[in-house]
Amino acid sequence: MLVKKTVRFLPYDIAIEVEEGANLLATAMEAGVHINASCGGEGVCGKCKIILESGELESKRGASQSTEEWNLGFRLACQSQVRSDVVVRIPPESLFEKRLMRQKPPAAKLRPMPFDVAELQETGRYDPAFQKKFLTLPAPTLSDNMCDLRRLREGLKKQYRLDNITVDFALTRTLAQALREKNFEVTVTLDFAQRRSRKPRLVRVEAGDTTGHHYAIAIDIGTTTVWGQVLDLVNGTILEALGEYNAQISYGEDVISRIIYASKPEGLKRLQEVVVATINSVIQALLKKCQLTTGDISHLTLAANTTMTHLFLGVDPKYIRLAPYVPTLCAIPPVRARDLGLAVADHVFIYCLSNVSSYVGGDIVSGVLGSGMYQENKLTLYIDIGTNGEIVVGNKDWMVCAACSAGPAFEGGGIRFGMRATRGAIEDISINPETGEPMLMTIGMAKPKGICGSGLINILAALMEIGFIDPKGKFRDDLDTPHIRQGESGREYVLATAPNTQINQDIVLSEVDIDNLMRAKGAMYAGYITLLESVGLSILDLEQIILAGAFGSFINIENAITIGLMPDLPLDKFTYVGNGSLLGATMVAFSREMLEEERRVAQMMTNFELSETPSFMDHYMAALFLPHTKKEYFPNVMARLAGFGKK
Amino acid sequence: MLVKKTVRFLPYDIAIEVEEGANLLATAMEAGVHINASCGGEGVCGKCKIILESGELESKRGASQSTEEWNLGFRLACQSQVRSDVVVRIPPESLFEKRLMRQKPPAAKLRPMPFDVAELQETGRYDPAFQKKFLTLPAPTLSDNMCDLRRLREGLKKQYRLDNITVDFALTRTLAQALREKNFEVTVTLDFAQRRSRKPRLVRVEAGDTTGHHYAIAIDIGTTTVWGQVLDLVNGTILEALGEYNAQISYGEDVISRIIYASKPEGLKRLQEVVVATINSVIQALLKKCQLTTGDISHLTLAANTTMTHLFLGVDPKYIRLAPYVPTLCAIPPVRARDLGLAVADHVFIYCLSNVSSYVGGDIVSGVLGSGMYQENKLTLYIDIGTNGEIVVGNKDWMVCAACSAGPAFEGGGIRFGMRATRGAIEDISINPETGEPMLMTIGMAKPKGICGSGLINILAALMEIGFIDPKGKFRDDLDTPHIRQGESGREYVLATAPNTQINQDIVLSEVDIDNLMRAKGAMYAGYITLLESVGLSILDLEQIILAGAFGSFINIENAITIGLMPDLPLDKFTYVGNGSLLGATMVAFSREMLEEERRVAQMMTNFELSETPSFMDHYMAALFLPHTKKEYFPNVMARLAGFGKK
Repeated sequence: MLVKKTVRFLPYDIAIEVEEGANLLATAMEAGVHINASCGGEGVCGKCKIILESGELESKRGASQSTEEWNLGFRLACQSQVRSDVVVRIPPESLFEKRLMRQKPPAAKLRPMPFDVAELQETGRYDPAFQKKFLTLPAPTLSDNMCDLRRLREGLKKQYRLDNITVDFALTRTLAQALREKNFEVTVTLDFAQRRSRKPRLVRVEAGDTTGHHYAIAIDIGTTTVWGQVLDLVNGTILEALGEYNAQISYGEDVISRIIYASKPEGLKRLQEVVVATINSVIQALLKKCQLTTGDISHLTLAANTTMTHLFLGVDPKYIRLAPYVPTLCAIPPVRARDLGLAVADHVFIYCLSNVSSYVGGDIVSGVLGSGMYQENKLTLYIDIGTNGEIVVGNKDWMVCAACSAGPAFEGGGIRFGMRATRGAIEDISINPETGEPMLMTIGMAKPKGICGSGLINILAALMEIGFIDPKGKFRDDLDTPHIRQGESGREYVLATAPNTQINQDIVLSEVDIDNLMRAKGAMYAGYITLLESVGLSILDLEQIILAGAFGSFINIENAITIGLMPDLPLDKFTYVGNGSLLGATMVAFSREMLEEERRVAQMMTNFELSETPSFMDHYMAALFLPHTKKEYFPNVMARLAGFGKK
Repeated sequence: MLVKKTVRFLPYDIAIEVEEGANLLATAMEAGVHINASCGGEGVCGKCKIILESGELESKRGASQSTEEWNLGFRLACQSQVRSDVVVRIPPESLFEKRLMRQKPPAAKLRPMPFDVAELQETGRYDPAFQKKFLTLPAPTLSDNMCDLRRLREGLKKQYRLDNITVDFALTRTLAQALREKNFEVTVTLDFAQRRSRKPRLVRVEAGDTTGHHYAIAIDIGTTTVWGQVLDLVNGTILEALGEYNAQISYGEDVISRIIYASKPEGLKRLQEVVVATINSVIQALLKKCQLTTGDISHLTLAANTTMTHLFLGVDPKYIRLAPYVPTLCAIPPVRARDLGLAVADHVFIYCLSNVSSYVGGDIVSGVLGSGMYQENKLTLYIDIGTNGEIVVGNKDWMVCAACSAGPAFEGGGIRFGMRATRGAIEDISINPETGEPMLMTIGMAKPKGICGSGLINILAALMEIGFIDPKGKFRDDLDTPHIRQGESGREYVLATAPNTQINQDIVLSEVDIDNLMRAKGAMYAGYITLLESVGLSILDLEQIILAGAFGSFINIENAITIGLMPDLPLDKFTYVGNGSLLGATMVAFSREMLEEERRVAQMMTNFELSETPSFMDHYMAALFLPHTKKEYFPNVMARLAGFGKK
């Protein structure tokens, strides 16, 4: 059970409840209380001093702190953990006017859309495509000596009314033994996937009753990371999940460079093998964690973008890259996992989610499925921002989709100090509007190393809110703060100076970086508009927005709206699904209906090639502003910006 | 064109037409003219002298022949070939009374039941399950950039109204290339097997129009020999056929010894691998003969007995041998040929004919299918005599079947000088009833080495006809001929003396050998009776008898009837199908309907375990006579024997 403590910040008199042990700097950030802090929480810069007025903090003493200071109650916020209800005071050097404080809603208010097997069960959709059935068969006699396989078929007919099944050849090699091991009591595993169009398929026979022991693994191949999770098919729970870097990274960071590598001699083979090696490693680690063996897994489900799917299958993705951008296959026949090199039992097939087009892949279809968007009445916008951005607009009746060449800015690409969301990445900020002094939060509270995607959004929003940059993304030249200076490529905001970083360089955000961010967010926003226009609708018609991707879970929605990356709609219309790709792969393993639906859903999604849609470029140009040329799209942001900022 | 010549034998004045170049001894045997001959045609014994009265013979001079004799027109029949119409005289020492001469009908009178594609075509059944279709697809554009696979599907829908097909994953790896190689003109191969219950399956895509180039291979795995034949699916012809010894022979001659070997460590694996190696060798030789490559073959069909089928599939046949004699599988799912180690293209599946029971296998189902028995109105008896004997009785409405533990006597097993039907095997005989002097025909006209199955039947029949043996299979003790003597195991008939053989031993047929032959034929005959009785019918109700197996093609039916192996019915009720197993495998490759029917046909065949049928033993005991205890079953034989024989 979590023990809650109250932290009260003076002189603002803002109180917040946090878990015991919470870091005080993080607590201040969450409460919207600014404390200067440049080193990300390592205790190096010594700026985040507060005074403990009452209660107990567990604090490490900063290197530069005197005994006198310590005895007076000065603590470094970043080095302090909350142990009881406490009252702390922000000293004058860190103060700024209360009216300027950000009224950022806690991230927790964003409604998550978690996996919910209870709901599946309630709606009768918890019905895995692979099912085990226990059979008690009569032992053969001279007057009843039909072959083992037929005995099994007759048993299925009598005990479960299952007639007309197909048999996976592989199982016949162990059938005689399995039947006789426990006196003709066996458990069979049946594949009911696509039952409407195909016969159930008998894939495994085990001696005795093993119906209580039945698992699958769902896999998501991301361009960067491969995720897997073990699913208990008996009670519909997720046992374990873990991810590893996709070993293909050594052959190129993005899909295009991998497609190019695949065209080299043996390149495709190599890429296929290394991603399979990663998946095998994930599977092995998962099985170990759950104390299962490969034999316990009845099937695999997988979702990935179109290029990743092709590479995984060993199908050359060459034409994905060349106009007119034609993938080889969208709907993927079930494939025997062993044939692809996966280290699972012989009978295991892998079910890959369908792609829509070259740049809208099975990962998006999976998210549309897993998030339930395909059954929504509400007009929904589904957004997955990763190396690229994919957008789906629609509801249960129709869907249009597109990929945005947003570029990798939100993953730190093309940004001078951009980086992935790993330890030392600046992920949140508060800026003192008087002094320009930042309060930085880094991942792992390490000294800053760079800026991750959500950090970029938050920094840009903070700079906008305090009026340091204008709608064109340029720094104002009338500011009296040492944090804005002329750099190599235009003006820049200094987030941390060399001594306070891991890289011994000043970490800055420049106007060039901001330009890149504007292009990325502009492409996404232009995508929404273009897709909506294609069906005669506008942003204001949207009733729901679903964010997918790890990015979607970490993003500060309000800031994303502020910079014009997300539509300016009430926050309660936003939900996030986390890794939508993995979610959908899990759902189809748990729900036969969804597995059967997935091809239909993919085919329902009409693909737009935005680069070929004339209006897209106009919308894109209009979106190259902060938040947007058309202020009417962002009424709430405009109101807020007017309220904040320099007087 | 064959040139026919007339050969007239004096003093009998029997004339026969033969092809130019025919061997004179063989011609005499065919005409039913006895000439003493002990060395099988090698010119060693010098007994087969005849006098050339007119016409031209091409003769080699025998080693023992004097110039004087030669000049007088004496020739060795076995060393002479017919070059013109000739008249030859049998010298007195070879003569026997004309009335004793065998009135054996030429073997050619037995009606063959050949493969007949014309008939298939007439009845609309020439319709291979695998078909090629040529497609001209629109090249993709930016406004029409669906994936390659869907483009193909749309093409099939538009051009051939083929919707809802499944796709063999393997082809997707070459799809993009195949489509683009000849500007989106492609030929697809579709699998329509089991179309009633399954969707058509797309198995291959080739660039351009290859519809004129489409082949399959039908395979028969015999316990002794593996046969294959290449089928041209475009016009329904058999291009080439050939056989090789099943390399499993090194691990046991019969199915039982192989089942035992399979139970040893690695034994099953070894047997699976060696039979696959034999099949691969057959396939390779066939492809070479036809100048084809593995890529030209779209599918394989295969028939074999139950044990051979299990071993080929790598399924342990252990329980076939143990009561209650349960095979693991009868109906066999299509298997990817590569998975079994067959050296064919990735997309090739092998379709194995269904087994009925442990000892009535796919080879018999294949013959029942290929011979058309399953569509017959006539009450038919289908007999396959090989290492074991299998029997099917029935018609299009019902069938009962059984395996007879006839033993390998008809393949030479258990007979002192028994051997397979290879060079040097005595295959036919005529015996001078006065002197007991034999006229031997051997395979390849080589010096005798032993006696093959058809030879055993002919010798036994000849000994019966001239009255040398009684109905119990014992030699009469009142005969004044040096050819019958007391041997190590009872009396024996001397076929050839040591100097005239390849083995430097006298070749004999003993009473022990005859006992074994009687047991073998008795088991078969008791099988017919038992099966017929099980459905309330008798031998006399039979309207047709189909003989299968190489043995069936070589057997002298009248002699087989004489010894009681075949029912005593008019010869025009008998037909032979040769290798019924290979025939059926070919038929199912040519006829989708038959491929779809085969499981039904196998399931229609009710199996009897004769050893468990009480009446079988009575019928068996009754059949241990020559021809049979119940003379009324053999009216024609009894009449003939009464007419022949010693006065």
